[in-house]
Amino acid sequence: MSGQYVGVQAIRWDTDKLLLLDQRILPDKEEYISYVDVNAVADAIRNMVVRGAPAIGITAAYGVVLAARARFNASLSDWKQQIESDLETLSLSRPTAVNLFWAIERMRRVINDISNEMPEPVLLAEAKRIHEEDIQACHRMGELGAALIEKPCAILTHCNAGALATGGFGTALGVVRAGYSAGKIHHVYADETRPWMQGARLTAWEMVQEKIPVTLQAEGAAGHLMKQGKIDWVIVGSDRIAANGDVANKIGTYNLAVLARHHGVKFMVVAPTTTVDMNIASGDDIPIEQRSADEVLSLAGNRIAAAGAEAWNPAFDVTPAELVDAIVTEKGVVLNPDAARMTAMMSSQ
Amino acid sequence: MSGQYVGVQAIRWDTDKLLLLDQRILPDKEEYISYVDVNAVADAIRNMVVRGAPAIGITAAYGVVLAARARFNASLSDWKQQIESDLETLSLSRPTAVNLFWAIERMRRVINDISNEMPEPVLLAEAKRIHEEDIQACHRMGELGAALIEKPCAILTHCNAGALATGGFGTALGVVRAGYSAGKIHHVYADETRPWMQGARLTAWEMVQEKIPVTLQAEGAAGHLMKQGKIDWVIVGSDRIAANGDVANKIGTYNLAVLARHHGVKFMVVAPTTTVDMNIASGDDIPIEQRSADEVLSLAGNRIAAAGAEAWNPAFDVTPAELVDAIVTEKGVVLNPDAARMTAMMSSQ
Repeated sequence: MSGQYVGVQAIRWDTDKLLLLDQRILPDKEEYISYVDVNAVADAIRNMVVRGAPAIGITAAYGVVLAARARFNASLSDWKQQIESDLETLSLSRPTAVNLFWAIERMRRVINDISNEMPEPVLLAEAKRIHEEDIQACHRMGELGAALIEKPCAILTHCNAGALATGGFGTALGVVRAGYSAGKIHHVYADETRPWMQGARLTAWEMVQEKIPVTLQAEGAAGHLMKQGKIDWVIVGSDRIAANGDVANKIGTYNLAVLARHHGVKFMVVAPTTTVDMNIASGDDIPIEQRSADEVLSLAGNRIAAAGAEAWNPAFDVTPAELVDAIVTEKGVVLNPDAARMTAMMSSQ
Repeated sequence: MSGQYVGVQAIRWDTDKLLLLDQRILPDKEEYISYVDVNAVADAIRNMVVRGAPAIGITAAYGVVLAARARFNASLSDWKQQIESDLETLSLSRPTAVNLFWAIERMRRVINDISNEMPEPVLLAEAKRIHEEDIQACHRMGELGAALIEKPCAILTHCNAGALATGGFGTALGVVRAGYSAGKIHHVYADETRPWMQGARLTAWEMVQEKIPVTLQAEGAAGHLMKQGKIDWVIVGSDRIAANGDVANKIGTYNLAVLARHHGVKFMVVAPTTTVDMNIASGDDIPIEQRSADEVLSLAGNRIAAAGAEAWNPAFDVTPAELVDAIVTEKGVVLNPDAARMTAMMSSQ
């Protein structure tokens, strides 16, 4: 990696294996799990050992490296056909974050171009480029996002769009890191983010490590917080942005966007262009992952709801572009996003 | 009691002692704790063995009975002076639910009127009247609230405003019980209600017992639910209603009110007139209880957030009257509440 500051490293390549920081047990335990098998990598994405759209994409890219090694060792002549089922397995691991499909597609193009050389070194170089580019994008977004903040303020974030969710540094929390350094952000309120508690477990942990003051709250407190004038911005990441600027992100994000507009609080979405899906016209067409009801019916592994109760557990929601004040990508900032402005940003150099 | 249907009984008087269903361990265990000491009753309110504004008021009334017994046994001549400190202790147990102060004041008036008779039977009769009147009020509110619903629909509720939060039958869930019986409500969505999980633990349990279909969700899913057109009404209880119709209720209620207005979903508050505080002009003056940060920093008793993270844990928020479509009391329905309409309802017979 470039040596730029990344914060926590959720994803590492160690000589011949992939290491993933097990985000299911943070901050209680800091343990890396090592992977040499692509199916195990797909399971890690599905089970949220690793999560966050950019991080999922990077992980899948390294997964392709492992798949190529195994397929090439099994059959020098047939590996390009055989690896297709691995790419399919990876792409089925989670449905909403488009970075996953983007990364697999980018790796597939490299596979297609390989003729006689050993595939692993070529593919590993590409996966590392994807990883490195994501870190660079996060730093650039950090600068661009922080520049949007006019006066020192407190902000509210949701879920974890930090170093843990990316190659490093973070998207929304990249803006927080940059904004805190620049004196633009002095306090972070973090939704705890039920049911998976990414805010309580991951965002608070990242902020404490950076010595950035962080206050957790239940999602229910967001309106009360805004009404008291305590925050100027809501800053979140995204799992997929449609061509018109509609934003899919962790369930609860849309609540915050409605609340922010009601209170005159600004709403910023920070995501690399790898999260933008120009093939999807609007958020209506973004597939929303439904996760197990058990995540809501249970608390810390124990059933909490009465037997017979059911639960609805959509993992994401869609915030329409008209509730978004700014989408920050590494290519630039889109204010009051719509299809034309998104197209202009995506086609800029 | 009258014999009217009450659902779960959270509060019982058994010969000479008060029994409270321990709501901290529901639905896992159904255990009643018995009380003969007023200080223990105040602790039970503070620690949420019993919760819900009407239930807190009723519990305090029975607490006054226990206090009078002890003070009278200790000093026949001086008990009326001595009991004042017990009334003070009870009134300090929780700050937001006005029913607590209302019930203590009503019991104090009976104390003042006692001359030579034994205080306990007189006070017990008054506490039972308070309890019984609350059940009657819930049934009346159930009818009035259900009548507001024009066509069969699903509703969303928050926290627990059920039998457990009242003398029996419930406020918001009283409307649900009545509405379900009348074919007006066919499905209940329930916010799990962090951090104390009243929705997951209590509301789901009450609904399952009634065989009313209930689906739990994280608070974050409310906007997504409304956007999909799945609900017609949000129906909640209240801990205190100001003279202008501003409504204090469990943290997260205000989020729902803003979201409901944004989506054209109707917003109904169901509370007996004992919850209305005509001495407070607006919600700005309602004291909002701040509870321990540990309730947010921990999950199921174990610290979940990184050391060094702080939490903000307001137990209630205030929904301004302009976001409320209907306040339902046992005295009648106030549509589009404001100070004049609230005064008219309160002064009606």
